[in-house]
Amino acid sequence: MSINNKNPYGPNPSDFLSNVNSFEIIDTTLREGEQFANAFYTLDSKVKIAKALSDFGVDYIELTSPVASPQSKIELETVCKLGLKCKVLTHIRCNINDAKVAVACGVDGVNVFIGTSQFMKRYSHGKDMSFITNAAIQVIEFVKSKGLEIRFSTEDSFRSDMVDLLNIYTTVDKIGVNRIGIADTVGGANPRQVYDLVRTIKSCVSCDIETHFHNDTGCAIANAYTALEAGSKFIDTTVLGIGERNGIVALGGFMARMVVSAPDYVKSKYKLTKLRELETLVAETVKVNIPFNNPITGFCAFTHKAGVHAKAILANPATYEIINPADFGLSRYIHFASRLTGWNAIKARVEQLNLDLADDQIKEVTKKIKSMGDVRPLNIEDVDSIIKDYHSDSKKIELAKKEQEEHREALENLAGDDKAEDEPEQKRRRVEN
Amino acid sequence: MSINNKNPYGPNPSDFLSNVNSFEIIDTTLREGEQFANAFYTLDSKVKIAKALSDFGVDYIELTSPVASPQSKIELETVCKLGLKCKVLTHIRCNINDAKVAVACGVDGVNVFIGTSQFMKRYSHGKDMSFITNAAIQVIEFVKSKGLEIRFSTEDSFRSDMVDLLNIYTTVDKIGVNRIGIADTVGGANPRQVYDLVRTIKSCVSCDIETHFHNDTGCAIANAYTALEAGSKFIDTTVLGIGERNGIVALGGFMARMVVSAPDYVKSKYKLTKLRELETLVAETVKVNIPFNNPITGFCAFTHKAGVHAKAILANPATYEIINPADFGLSRYIHFASRLTGWNAIKARVEQLNLDLADDQIKEVTKKIKSMGDVRPLNIEDVDSIIKDYHSDSKKIELAKKEQEEHREALENLAGDDKAEDEPEQKRRRVEN
Repeated sequence: MSINNKNPYGPNPSDFLSNVNSFEIIDTTLREGEQFANAFYTLDSKVKIAKALSDFGVDYIELTSPVASPQSKIELETVCKLGLKCKVLTHIRCNINDAKVAVACGVDGVNVFIGTSQFMKRYSHGKDMSFITNAAIQVIEFVKSKGLEIRFSTEDSFRSDMVDLLNIYTTVDKIGVNRIGIADTVGGANPRQVYDLVRTIKSCVSCDIETHFHNDTGCAIANAYTALEAGSKFIDTTVLGIGERNGIVALGGFMARMVVSAPDYVKSKYKLTKLRELETLVAETVKVNIPFNNPITGFCAFTHKAGVHAKAILANPATYEIINPADFGLSRYIHFASRLTGWNAIKARVEQLNLDLADDQIKEVTKKIKSMGDVRPLNIEDVDSIIKDYHSDSKKIELAKKEQEEHREALENLAGDDKAEDEPEQKRRRVEN
Repeated sequence: MSINNKNPYGPNPSDFLSNVNSFEIIDTTLREGEQFANAFYTLDSKVKIAKALSDFGVDYIELTSPVASPQSKIELETVCKLGLKCKVLTHIRCNINDAKVAVACGVDGVNVFIGTSQFMKRYSHGKDMSFITNAAIQVIEFVKSKGLEIRFSTEDSFRSDMVDLLNIYTTVDKIGVNRIGIADTVGGANPRQVYDLVRTIKSCVSCDIETHFHNDTGCAIANAYTALEAGSKFIDTTVLGIGERNGIVALGGFMARMVVSAPDYVKSKYKLTKLRELETLVAETVKVNIPFNNPITGFCAFTHKAGVHAKAILANPATYEIINPADFGLSRYIHFASRLTGWNAIKARVEQLNLDLADDQIKEVTKKIKSMGDVRPLNIEDVDSIIKDYHSDSKKIELAKKEQEEHREALENLAGDDKAEDEPEQKRRRVEN
C-alpha cells in the first residue's frame, strides 16, 4: 500500500481562473491595522514593521492616507524612502486632492476606495453613481499620468448593486486601472457567494482583481482562498488579522491555507521561518497576545494529545498534520501528560528519557499515568517521575531476581560438583543480556 | 433611496439542498475540547459546562469515550443523569466492546468513528475496508438494537478514496444509521471542495450528514457553513474552538456566521445573550484568554475607529456592522481617541459629555485631538479633557465677549439717552440665545 503524493488540497487543474499558484500579498498592517482599536504606531514602529514585512516577502505594503494626519504623511514619506523590496502603497478616498498629496509622498501606487452600496451611498459619503464614476476617472487619470500603479475599489461590494458594480468596474478597466478591488467591508460574505461575484466580475474586466475580507463571521481566510480560485490575484492581509472591529485576513492563517494548497509556490516565495518573529513584533507593538488558537504559531498548533493521534503521528506525522511545522521553523509536540494519553506516546517519552522498558512494562506504566491523570492535571515532570520510578523499581526487581538466582546457583554449587563445568558460561550469558 | 431588506447573505432559494435554515449543533467541548492541550476537566467542570451548553440551546453534547479512563466513564454517567434539554452522545472507536460500555452509561446516542484514508489505514489502526465495514455493521446493529441514535463517521474523509467512502456510507445508510459523519481531521479542506464532497455524498444516502472541521488552515467556520449549503445538517462545534492542535469550528464564530445567514432561525433557537458567559466559563476552565480578535466577544469586535466609519455608524450602524451587538447582549463602541478620529465621532462624544459646541468648534477641537494623537497614544480621559478644556475656554471667551459687549453698551447708555428704549429688549434676546 503506497501513499498517493497528489495534493488533495491543490487547485483543480480544470479551473483555468485560479490564481492559487500565482497570488500576491498586499499587506495592510500599516493601514487597516492602524484602524485596530489598540494600534498606536510611531514612526519607529512603522519603519520596523515595514522592514519586517518586506523581509518576509510580501509583495506590497499599504499605509494610512497621508491626509489622515500630519504624522501619517511623515511616516508614509519615510517608509517610501527605505528602499524596501516590496512596493509601497497608500489607501485614499476617491478625490483628486487626496491623490495629489499621496503621489507627492513618493509611493509606488495608490489604492483608491469609495463606498457603492446603498448603505454607503446613503449614510457615508452621500454621492450617487455618476458622481462616483466621474471622481474615479479624474483620480485614475491623474495617478496614471504620474506613472504610478492605481487600484480602484468599491467598499462594501457584496451589498452593492451588481449593475452599479459592473458599470464602474468596466469603466475604470477601460481607462487603464491596474487593479480593481472587491471588498467585504462588513465581513458578512460567504465562500460560494465570493466565488460567484469574483468570477462574474473577472469575466467582465481585463485588469487584475484585489480582494479584501473582514472576519466578522469567521470566513475571511476561506473567502480569500475562494477568491483566488475565482480569479482574484491580490489578497489583502494584516499580521494577526488586526483591523477595524475583529479585523481581516490574517497573514499567518493565510500562509497556513496557502502552504497546504500551493506548497512549492509559497515555500519558495515567502520566508516562512520569519512568521513567528513578525507576529511577535506586531503583537508587542499593538499590545495583544497571540491567540491561543492561532494557526501555525498558536501555542498548541502542533501539539497532539489523544492517544490514538499520538500513535499515528509517531509513525507518520502527515497522518494528523497537514502542515509541516519545520517549514515555519517550529516543531511538533506529542502531549503525553494527560488521562487521554496512550502507550505509544509514553513509549516515545521513555525513549526520549533514554530508559529501557519492554512494551508490556510501558503499557503498565501508561495505566498508572492515566489513572493519575484522572485525579488531577499532570505536567511533564509528573509523568517523567512516574516513568522513572517505575523504571527504577523494575530495575530493582530485576536486580533482586538476579541476586536471588546467583544465590540459588551458589547453593547448588556447594551441593554438588557434577554441574561445575557449565555454570560459569551460564553466568556470563546472563550478564551480557 | 430606500434600503433593500433582502438579506444578501441568506441562502440561495434555488439551492434545495441547503440546511442553512435548519441546522443542528453537536457541541463537543467535552470530547474534542478535552483533546485541547490545556484541558483538564474535573467532574464538576464537566457538569457545569454541560449545563451551560444545554442552557445556550445546543442540540447535542458529545463526551469523551467512557473507555478512555475510569474517570471519563464516571463523568459520562453523571452527565447522562442530569436531565439536560440537549441529547448526550459519546464518541467511540468502531468496536463492539467500546459500544457496549458506551450504551451502558445511559447515553442518547453513540458517535462512532474510524479512519478510512490511506494514512489512517496504514499508520493508525492498520485495518482494510472490509474489516472496517464489518466492524461498522456490528456496532451499528448493536446500538440500534438498544433503541439509541447512532452516527458512523470516517476520519480524515477528505484524504479518503471516494469509492471507499461511498461504499461504506451507502452500506451503513442501508442498515439504518441515523447520521453519517464527514470529518476534515487534519484541517486542510477548502470550501468548494467541502461543497463538492458533501453534495456528492448527500446524493447517495438518505440519512442525515454531520460534519467536523479542524481549523489548521483557518477555514473551519466557512467549511461548516458551506457544508450546510451542500446538505449537511449537523455541525460539530466547541466553545472557543478548543480541540486537537488549534482546534475546530468555534461555537461563537459559527453563531456569528449563522446569525447573519439565518437570523430568525438562530435568534429564536439559541440563547445568544449567554454566549459570553459560556465562553468565559470554558476559557477559565482550560486557562486561556479569549482571543483579542474573537468574533462577537473579542474586545473590539464592535469597536469602530476610522473617522469615515464612525460617521456612517452613527447615522446607521448597519453601514459597517453586519451583526447587531444587542442580539448578543453587547454594545458597540465608537473609538474616538486616536489620530484617525473624525469630527462626527468627536461630536457624538461631545453629546455624551452633555456639552454644547457648534459644528465649527467640534471640527477645531477634532484637529487638536488628532494632532495630540500624532504625538502619543490617547486614552478616553485625554480626549475628554481636551474637549472639556476647549469647551471651558470657549465658554470663557463667550463670557468675556458678553462682558465686553455689556460694558460697551453701558458706555453707550451713559453717552446718550436717545436709544434708551431699545436696549433692554436687545439684552433679553442675547441672554435667551
